[in-house]
Amino acid sequence: MMSNNFNQTEKDGLYKAIFSRRDVRSHFTSESIDDEIITRILTAAHHAPSVGFSQPWNFILIKDQETRRKIKESFSLENKKASKLIEDPKKSKYLSLKLEGILESAINLCITYDPTKFGPFVIGRTSIPEAGIYSVCCAVQNLWLAARAEGIGVGWVSILSNQELKKALDLPDHIIPIAYLCLGHVTEFAEKPDLETEGWLSRLQLDDVVYYEKWNEKQNMNWEKIQELIKENLDYA
Amino acid sequence: MMSNNFNQTEKDGLYKAIFSRRDVRSHFTSESIDDEIITRILTAAHHAPSVGFSQPWNFILIKDQETRRKIKESFSLENKKASKLIEDPKKSKYLSLKLEGILESAINLCITYDPTKFGPFVIGRTSIPEAGIYSVCCAVQNLWLAARAEGIGVGWVSILSNQELKKALDLPDHIIPIAYLCLGHVTEFAEKPDLETEGWLSRLQLDDVVYYEKWNEKQNMNWEKIQELIKENLDYA
Repeated sequence: MMSNNFNQTEKDGLYKAIFSRRDVRSHFTSESIDDEIITRILTAAHHAPSVGFSQPWNFILIKDQETRRKIKESFSLENKKASKLIEDPKKSKYLSLKLEGILESAINLCITYDPTKFGPFVIGRTSIPEAGIYSVCCAVQNLWLAARAEGIGVGWVSILSNQELKKALDLPDHIIPIAYLCLGHVTEFAEKPDLETEGWLSRLQLDDVVYYEKWNEKQNMNWEKIQELIKENLDYA
Repeated sequence: MMSNNFNQTEKDGLYKAIFSRRDVRSHFTSESIDDEIITRILTAAHHAPSVGFSQPWNFILIKDQETRRKIKESFSLENKKASKLIEDPKKSKYLSLKLEGILESAINLCITYDPTKFGPFVIGRTSIPEAGIYSVCCAVQNLWLAARAEGIGVGWVSILSNQELKKALDLPDHIIPIAYLCLGHVTEFAEKPDLETEGWLSRLQLDDVVYYEKWNEKQNMNWEKIQELIKENLDYA
């Protein structure tokens, strides 16, 4: 049994994974991933929280080039559609960005949501049915962090048609694909998110996203000390 | 700058957080949480991945007893409704479960999704608009893991009316509450999930949730070694 408390190095390990995790698109190498590593990161995902302990996720491991070509085709179509929503110079900038590593990553991984698992009555899903999907996202994040600690880059491709994805992977009607991920060794983990480096958007300060007691409330007598701390909060990555 | 590689202790720290994280309902103490700890776990959440780097989350810290009483009332109503969906003996079992710690935890925290932030054009959200919500869930999981490492228990309350929640926190119409969390020090972190200990559901084996190349495909020549590893995979927690 594990000790209940975390020593400083253990804490540092977790925070290091959180702050140095990146959405990887352009730094994949062709090196294959050890099966032991794949097993560990899937186990990490499977230990995510799930509403009513419903564990509503499935993991589809993909190497097949034919499947990947179909997905890449869907990406290209959807990406073109997206670019039509904006005007130059933003449009040219958008089209210059590398947004996926479907073909060059070692493996692809689709993480799906099955609303029927252990259902229809799932504890905690009766008032907010979307809670089942939220569980699957927590599994994605566990996997992403574990992959980072194992030196594996992960890129989430959301410029895709879910209908095409369902066809390519033979998903039944009731199964919802949540995340389509590209995984592989990388030449480097970028110091900052690509979109920050490219000047697309900046990271917000923590102070910009925290409220006290109610929406939009930035000053509250019961939270005086923490308001100072949060304002001084340094950006870690 | 942090070193790119993780040593074994750092990896262990991350996996320990993943495997020993619990959904806490009944073990909260009244001890308050250090502002430094709250700041660190919010920073961890804020460093989650977000679609198009849109950082669409806000964090509302709540201590106010009046707000909590309203939320607790909503829980009680929704919980009663839920119990009417099932019959005894399941119903009695359900009603005997402690499913929230709204009033007795040190603080409550609502994490919300703002679809308008940096919008309307957000990279990666054009084909799958839900991707914005998925980002917020990743932030929840970062926070949950950081809290665990800091010795803070987190319980996610999803038996709630989002309408009542929006009223209680003055959320504008377009803001979607994703997670309502209770945070506090705990007398213990349970060894297993409460619903597993209570015999409500068992943890699935990893082998039950992994497919190869296509939905439902459990045998695939290109994945022979990992199939063995995944079958032998031990449950960690």
